[in-house]
Amino acid sequence: MQCSLGRTLELVGDWWSPLIIRDLALGLSRFDELAEDLGISRNLLTVRLNALVDGGVVSRERISARSTRSHYALTTKGRDLIPIFAALTAWGDKWATPENGPPIYFGHRDCCDRTRLDICCSTCKEPIRPDDVTMHAGPGARASKGTKLIGARAEAQANG
Amino acid sequence: MQCSLGRTLELVGDWWSPLIIRDLALGLSRFDELAEDLGISRNLLTVRLNALVDGGVVSRERISARSTRSHYALTTKGRDLIPIFAALTAWGDKWATPENGPPIYFGHRDCCDRTRLDICCSTCKEPIRPDDVTMHAGPGARASKGTKLIGARAEAQANG
Repeated sequence: MQCSLGRTLELVGDWWSPLIIRDLALGLSRFDELAEDLGISRNLLTVRLNALVDGGVVSRERISARSTRSHYALTTKGRDLIPIFAALTAWGDKWATPENGPPIYFGHRDCCDRTRLDICCSTCKEPIRPDDVTMHAGPGARASKGTKLIGARAEAQANG
Repeated sequence: MQCSLGRTLELVGDWWSPLIIRDLALGLSRFDELAEDLGISRNLLTVRLNALVDGGVVSRERISARSTRSHYALTTKGRDLIPIFAALTAWGDKWATPENGPPIYFGHRDCCDRTRLDICCSTCKEPIRPDDVTMHAGPGARASKGTKLIGARAEAQANG
């Protein structure tokens, strides 16, 4: 799909993958731990972990040369999702809060124990409000599967 | 689920919902436009739109009193996802770039036409690197479905 959100979702867009990534970010690493924490079937967990490994988001390493068991960890590509998923989690804290309040607070190492995760503009450094995100056609804009109308409009915009 | 990421995914966590939200953010508003752009079956689109309306992420309004057709738009709750999904899209531009480069550039109204979307700490205003996101138990931490191990660890942490 000629859309970077669509391509992202191909990697992490099912219901379970973000929760697997959450668990790895929180320090779980073994298959059995992930299965127990999530309450997911072992078959489905295998399928999702294989897809994340194939997509370069998660790495798999044998625990030892003599063991058939593996450790799972986020790759650099996968760790790059942590701040974004933390911001998505903060949206859930705000709009779909569990009873008793947020299950997790996010902090900034060597800075503070609780931070609001703002999406900021790299030019002016200010938080970007939803109405102030502008979108322009980039060089990859195409009318194709999943972007049939918006891709065509963006292509037309890019060509003048 | 006692996890704000899990609760977020219950609202927007299938493959299609983020793309529907993308299309609404980009200005599409009619059912037929969404169906054509995404190449999704009308049945599935109906199911996903109903869930987004029920979840308060999308609003549905009759085009006119005499029409049976509707306009769809993001609510405030839904629009609050735009910067986060833009940051997720930028991750896709970086790690799963379509041929020819990014399909969309994001800008900041009245500031710049192209911005990098950084997730920033509200305390120090600096971008947060993946390794510098810290996580602490909040008041809603519970060992329950989807958080059996990490919830128990967080509860233990919160209680001492």
